[in-house]
Amino acid sequence: MDAIGIERGCESPRLLEVPKPDPTDGEALIRTLRVGVDGTDHEVIAGTHGGFPEDDDHLVLGHEAVGVVEDPNDTGFERGDVVAPTVRRPPEGGTNQYFERGEADMAPPTETVERGIDGAHGFMSEYFTSPEAFLVSVPEALAELGFLLEPISISEKALELAYASRSSFAWEPETAFVLGNGPLGLLTVAMLADDMRVYCLGRRDRPDPSIDIVESLGATYVDSRETPVEAVPDVHEPMDLIYEATGYAKHAFDSIDALAPNGVAALLGVPEPWTFDVDGGRLHKEFVMHNKALVGSVNSGPSHFRAAVDRLGALPDPFLEAFVTGIVPHRGFERAFEQRKTDIKTAVEFDSI
Amino acid sequence: MDAIGIERGCESPRLLEVPKPDPTDGEALIRTLRVGVDGTDHEVIAGTHGGFPEDDDHLVLGHEAVGVVEDPNDTGFERGDVVAPTVRRPPEGGTNQYFERGEADMAPPTETVERGIDGAHGFMSEYFTSPEAFLVSVPEALAELGFLLEPISISEKALELAYASRSSFAWEPETAFVLGNGPLGLLTVAMLADDMRVYCLGRRDRPDPSIDIVESLGATYVDSRETPVEAVPDVHEPMDLIYEATGYAKHAFDSIDALAPNGVAALLGVPEPWTFDVDGGRLHKEFVMHNKALVGSVNSGPSHFRAAVDRLGALPDPFLEAFVTGIVPHRGFERAFEQRKTDIKTAVEFDSI
Repeated sequence: MDAIGIERGCESPRLLEVPKPDPTDGEALIRTLRVGVDGTDHEVIAGTHGGFPEDDDHLVLGHEAVGVVEDPNDTGFERGDVVAPTVRRPPEGGTNQYFERGEADMAPPTETVERGIDGAHGFMSEYFTSPEAFLVSVPEALAELGFLLEPISISEKALELAYASRSSFAWEPETAFVLGNGPLGLLTVAMLADDMRVYCLGRRDRPDPSIDIVESLGATYVDSRETPVEAVPDVHEPMDLIYEATGYAKHAFDSIDALAPNGVAALLGVPEPWTFDVDGGRLHKEFVMHNKALVGSVNSGPSHFRAAVDRLGALPDPFLEAFVTGIVPHRGFERAFEQRKTDIKTAVEFDSI
Repeated sequence: MDAIGIERGCESPRLLEVPKPDPTDGEALIRTLRVGVDGTDHEVIAGTHGGFPEDDDHLVLGHEAVGVVEDPNDTGFERGDVVAPTVRRPPEGGTNQYFERGEADMAPPTETVERGIDGAHGFMSEYFTSPEAFLVSVPEALAELGFLLEPISISEKALELAYASRSSFAWEPETAFVLGNGPLGLLTVAMLADDMRVYCLGRRDRPDPSIDIVESLGATYVDSRETPVEAVPDVHEPMDLIYEATGYAKHAFDSIDALAPNGVAALLGVPEPWTFDVDGGRLHKEFVMHNKALVGSVNSGPSHFRAAVDRLGALPDPFLEAFVTGIVPHRGFERAFEQRKTDIKTAVEFDSI
């Protein structure tokens, strides 16, 4: 069957011919509908994140997938069910406490592989198999957009951690600051915009479709070249909730100043090493005197995918129409990996329902 | 009546003659038993923390108090009830959302004064008054040690925030690292020692009574001159829970490396500004990839005092006997403010029950 992946030593994805997988006991066979492309894919292609499966000379890409059950193979699914796969799997042949508890997203990197990212083939192929426990049911009406469930689930988990960190006292966030106007940032703006005043940090010039989306959601675009993160409380207002999706390490520290008292910043970026000066004494004191919190968040689990199903169903159609800028047939997959200024979210399409 | 306080322009506490207070409506009059001394008192005396009440030329010290109701004055208390006062009060003449919710500890500094610390007289006097809502009942058997309820409540709050931050997934901490072997650090070691493997960071030479206490509780003393915070996972083990009570700003950042995956560090120190280098990129990535958290925590509210009553009753007698190294009659208060190497926790005594 066709698959899209990278080969060791190559710098761009290729169309590969790989064997159609056979489901083992407890696995279903899934016919792939669409697979989204995101920043992590580009990092994997560039070799700065993740890695090949051991003893394999290629990695099938894709971790944002939606498909249809082709062969239930004695799982609880029926042929034709629409499903989205979670990303993490136990390392070869095993399991561990995190997977047994349904909390694979809390496993340290040594206790997990990630399909399409690190150590296991992804979903960007005509078919894939998956154990039942790692497949989440998707309503048929959401099948076409089901590739958005994975990124939404990433934000569901980060927000869950952030809210949990404030759960021992009364906390009703009124302001949120999303750092980053890439696809994950824009999805998060859309997720929060109905419930609070949302600001979104970027560094793009107008006209720009991501700025248009921010503003169409009623949120405020903040150009980091004019208003640095730490200046936002003075220029706009202090932020109860910050969601960092830039991978720019100084933002983690600048967020402490941008938070309102009792606020929390969720960090999701994965920067490279970078040493710089901080006024650690002042930040430490600010953190303590105002009961602030920082939470790091990686990946997401089945419960976050299920929350994402409800969330996706509630996102406004005009946002989704503007957000998904390209659905590309799998034989023309290259277009989905280009990053034109007008691209926001692209996906590779293998089949329709 | 006698009070112990500092006068503007003076560098050490003095015995002052101040008027005996009259309880206003809703306030009870309390006869003071004992008032503890801690590091914050020394910072207040040195002028590096807190401040005088507006328009007053002196500040009565003391925020760790226990007393006996002398005049209930139509509150729900009876004459003879043992009580401990919380520390924060609304700024003059008002109230605000934090106090109305019983969460004064979550008020930003502009929305509160702190008795004996910042903007309001403390409890180090023969009598004090307090609104009923800020008095916590203490069993008579704990009257003599009731001055420990305030510091214990500080840790109760910090631990509550830390546990809350990990409440969205299964988290059962097995290892804890208490940074600082001052009174607050030692109390926290005692609070945690039954439930997990506890390590305590200090930089004192043996023989030292604080090290003896750490070891008598079954905890491990870590000398920061031999084993820096970030080396602890290799030398000992990674820490699920870190409690920082040193005010040494680098510890806030070094804690990120000392944490186990999914761990949390509670920061309580209040350092001065201090700029230094950090590998912010690496720390940011570490934070995200292992779902780590940092929570800042200041002060404590009535619920934490109530939890502290239960906690104090459960602390082992040998610990408490070794921990309280000096009870000083109020006319010899100077001794309680000396900081000899053999001093751990001292209190000024005004009266007995």
